[in-house]
Amino acid sequence: MKSTYRVIFDCPDQVGIVTQVAEVITRNGGWICEATHHSDVESKRFFSRFEIQADSLTFGIDELRTQFEPLIEKFDMNFRLVSSDQPKKVVLMASKGSHCLSDLLDRWRSGDLDCEISCVISNHKDMQGLVEWYGIPYHHVVIEKDNKAPGFAQVEALVDEYKADCVVLARYMQILPQALCEKYRHNVINIHHSFLPSFIGAKPYHQASRRGVKLIGATCHYVTEQLDEGPIIDQDVVRVTHSDKVEDLVRLGKDVEKTVLARGLRDHLEDRVLVHGNKTIVFS
Amino acid sequence: MKSTYRVIFDCPDQVGIVTQVAEVITRNGGWICEATHHSDVESKRFFSRFEIQADSLTFGIDELRTQFEPLIEKFDMNFRLVSSDQPKKVVLMASKGSHCLSDLLDRWRSGDLDCEISCVISNHKDMQGLVEWYGIPYHHVVIEKDNKAPGFAQVEALVDEYKADCVVLARYMQILPQALCEKYRHNVINIHHSFLPSFIGAKPYHQASRRGVKLIGATCHYVTEQLDEGPIIDQDVVRVTHSDKVEDLVRLGKDVEKTVLARGLRDHLEDRVLVHGNKTIVFS
Amino acid sequence: MKSTYRVIFDCPDQVGIVTQVAEVITRNGGWICEATHHSDVESKRFFSRFEIQADSLTFGIDELRTQFEPLIEKFDMNFRLVSSDQPKKVVLMASKGSHCLSDLLDRWRSGDLDCEISCVISNHKDMQGLVEWYGIPYHHVVIEKDNKAPGFAQVEALVDEYKADCVVLARYMQILPQALCEKYRHNVINIHHSFLPSFIGAKPYHQASRRGVKLIGATCHYVTEQLDEGPIIDQDVVRVTHSDKVEDLVRLGKDVEKTVLARGLRDHLEDRVLVHGNKTIVFS
Amino acid sequence: MKSTYRVIFDCPDQVGIVTQVAEVITRNGGWICEATHHSDVESKRFFSRFEIQADSLTFGIDELRTQFEPLIEKFDMNFRLVSSDQPKKVVLMASKGSHCLSDLLDRWRSGDLDCEISCVISNHKDMQGLVEWYGIPYHHVVIEKDNKAPGFAQVEALVDEYKADCVVLARYMQILPQALCEKYRHNVINIHHSFLPSFIGAKPYHQASRRGVKLIGATCHYVTEQLDEGPIIDQDVVRVTHSDKVEDLVRLGKDVEKTVLARGLRDHLEDRVLVHGNKTIVFS
Repeated sequence: MKSTYRVIFDCPDQVGIVTQVAEVITRNGGWICEATHHSDVESKRFFSRFEIQADSLTFGIDELRTQFEPLIEKFDMNFRLVSSDQPKKVVLMASKGSHCLSDLLDRWRSGDLDCEISCVISNHKDMQGLVEWYGIPYHHVVIEKDNKAPGFAQVEALVDEYKADCVVLARYMQILPQALCEKYRHNVINIHHSFLPSFIGAKPYHQASRRGVKLIGATCHYVTEQLDEGPIIDQDVVRVTHSDKVEDLVRLGKDVEKTVLARGLRDHLEDRVLVHGNKTIVFS
Repeated sequence: MKSTYRVIFDCPDQVGIVTQVAEVITRNGGWICEATHHSDVESKRFFSRFEIQADSLTFGIDELRTQFEPLIEKFDMNFRLVSSDQPKKVVLMASKGSHCLSDLLDRWRSGDLDCEISCVISNHKDMQGLVEWYGIPYHHVVIEKDNKAPGFAQVEALVDEYKADCVVLARYMQILPQALCEKYRHNVINIHHSFLPSFIGAKPYHQASRRGVKLIGATCHYVTEQLDEGPIIDQDVVRVTHSDKVEDLVRLGKDVEKTVLARGLRDHLEDRVLVHGNKTIVFS
Repeated sequence: MKSTYRVIFDCPDQVGIVTQVAEVITRNGGWICEATHHSDVESKRFFSRFEIQADSLTFGIDELRTQFEPLIEKFDMNFRLVSSDQPKKVVLMASKGSHCLSDLLDRWRSGDLDCEISCVISNHKDMQGLVEWYGIPYHHVVIEKDNKAPGFAQVEALVDEYKADCVVLARYMQILPQALCEKYRHNVINIHHSFLPSFIGAKPYHQASRRGVKLIGATCHYVTEQLDEGPIIDQDVVRVTHSDKVEDLVRLGKDVEKTVLARGLRDHLEDRVLVHGNKTIVFS
Repeated sequence: MKSTYRVIFDCPDQVGIVTQVAEVITRNGGWICEATHHSDVESKRFFSRFEIQADSLTFGIDELRTQFEPLIEKFDMNFRLVSSDQPKKVVLMASKGSHCLSDLLDRWRSGDLDCEISCVISNHKDMQGLVEWYGIPYHHVVIEKDNKAPGFAQVEALVDEYKADCVVLARYMQILPQALCEKYRHNVINIHHSFLPSFIGAKPYHQASRRGVKLIGATCHYVTEQLDEGPIIDQDVVRVTHSDKVEDLVRLGKDVEKTVLARGLRDHLEDRVLVHGNKTIVFS
């Protein structure tokens, strides 16, 4: 795959944004591989993502950034410029349930997830051998039921130390401290085992069984201070019937959880997700 | 299609139910076309549905009922015996939105919904000509905003008069009086324009848009005293994106609404739905 | 909905296309509501669609076309410029099966299909009353089994006379003459009752039943000289089981057929479909 | 999970089968947890599966088999009686692509696949460490391009030696010899990377890309002498667009492949799949 630069921004909408951004790119010979835009009518805000073939430019990413500076100021942009050559550093966090973790590791090894996996942090030891087989460091960090702070301090230290770009809660059964989520705002991704906003809170499959729904789902979202309320990146569902007991819902739900988490993470890693208040724009 | 008898029952679970029910059928030469069962482990209740080829029996439905009487008492069954030769009488209720109504009418005309449509009742006149083209009586019953009782009395009189077995709220935008729902308990079917229990209440598509979900849905359910809380018969969803405005959700949702309503109604008409508390068993 | 102009083109790919097209639009104050692009790596061809708010320009569509002329030549574009104020004229063709026809008519009446329906042409009389209730002319054109030419000549005369932009075969059970398809190339849309390329040819549901597939589908495509081989616009599937007989497949398939045809037609009407050899680019 | 006995049979259809089978079970106090039936109208053949709680019987599986013998003869049944306490022995075969293998291993470890995995056989060494982490023997058996017989002889010897009940081709990129498939008839399961019968043969994703389909799929089927023609157990699809290149189809297809294979295998392991000619009955 050829190396690309990704230009991602949002700003108040007005005439001429696409033209002037495209002009900066093409006056330097830049070859646009992808360009997608969204204009939110209600908030009058414009969202955009360009992907440019890196070797079509006569200079590097720093010079490109410099050339964009006048536009960033003029249009008051939230602006990111990212090289596909620098895959994001991801910390995976997991508990006993291994389906998401195991799934992400295989995707990563197969080259289907463009990232570095810095390490796995878990409050259990079960998966250590498997993770290490993949050549990834494993940190067993206990979260004491009655004294969670020390464990989470250790988690935070690890995330910082690895200079992680992104933390993925791959069915991690602990609630991360707000401060940590805030520090890595819009870079902490969770998979919730329900089709949000249905069945917020504990034991969603039990709730689903009690309500007698005919589909169950999973939701990949950014973690914010409001539990289960963060911006949704992706969701999906699977059909269930009256004969599925809670343990069947749990089992069927796993397939949705791992698929949705992987899809959402992939979009995040390719800088396809822009956050707008409590919603996302996903340029996929 | 050959005429069949449908035996539907539920009772406390114990050894020997299937055997003794099947024995009543086959000792009389009855040919079982379909047989499905469900035993609910938690409540220890057994649910079952047999479909028998009518002409394989040497006698008629009344004698068959008589033969079942000892078992009904012995096993303390909720028991129904229905002939496929007597399609249910259905009253359709609709408002301005025509997609569900129009869809059901075409299915009925094509022979895909095995019922009589006794009449259509609407608080608007728009669809009168179309309904009458199908040869179905149309009753325009106004529900006054500040005095709904007279309108609903008229609705109830019509439903009674037609000896309806089933009332279908095909996007009828009024809340039926509790007494009417109670009178036709588990025979009033509604299509709710959200994936329940998400977005209970008014304007679910607006709620869905605000929450930024990536799938929207619809739910076909029996109407009970608790609005949007009745037993769910069927549900489905459709994918949406950040670029779908509320009016797009409304449009996309229509496809799900009409498909789910038709599917749920069909199951109901074929006596495939058994209610268990606030849940359904659907033998499809 | 505000009036818009749609700029649709494809051309050999090179640096600067987006920039120069956008520049033409925005130098005249044009507000871009939507812009989507696709570059096909294999054929090195570029495909693009812009939607511009009409009243943001200081002049009309003819002047806009004039302003684009230099670019059309320079980049060797297939170029279309369309106003949303001029909905396409559609001729619907149907046979006995009414599900697609009835579905499209209701969508059209509800404002969900942005077109004029010029007329319905059918080789059967069954639906005449319903079509006329919608205020649409109905032409009963018999296609004689052993002498099809006169009937098709009449069909062609009608399509010509109505100056139709688009012909929709809504389960029309006759094969249109090649010359007619050629004349309205990429404007004759068919719904095929299988998930192409599975079960090409006659009686696909019978074929599907014999093969024992677990999903059946439908395919909306442009009609070309190669039967069932034209560019696919949209497809979908529905789950079936061993207990579904051929007539169940037919019934279940109808839901997919009508939904997929409506979706494909809608994309076509909004000029979101570009044909590239035997494939489509769908900017939805 | 409580231990159960599974009674699976098919025979010519006639009156009284269910009754007499159920009678054998319940006269011995047998508690029926599940019972599903299918009668194929065309071939007049009856298919059935009962699941009985083992400890509700006063004797063991051998005595139960004895009690069924008269019925087996009388009704000319293909008959199987299986205890859930004896999970099937499965040999997994894989090549370089690890997604199905890795997925099945995690499901097995989590208890979601009720089987023993006897060993993994692969023509590559890549996954040896991972497989061994799961405590499963790994056999690297090279299949020489120009002399495949010795490799396959070794494969067959291994399958025999492990007394395997079932062989799973988890994206194994070699065609098994007919004799081996015949020996383990209806117990060799393959995952084909297309929605059969579309794109039979080599490189289905390339074929799909050329045809411009809007959904791609995967098919889990029993391997028979006719390549890609065996009885289908399960299938599923995923949506793709014009912007997905062949490598995207490959990646997206993996999710379908692994889910469908796991679902089909699970049904097979629970004796829910009955083969009827070239089709399957799946009692799920």
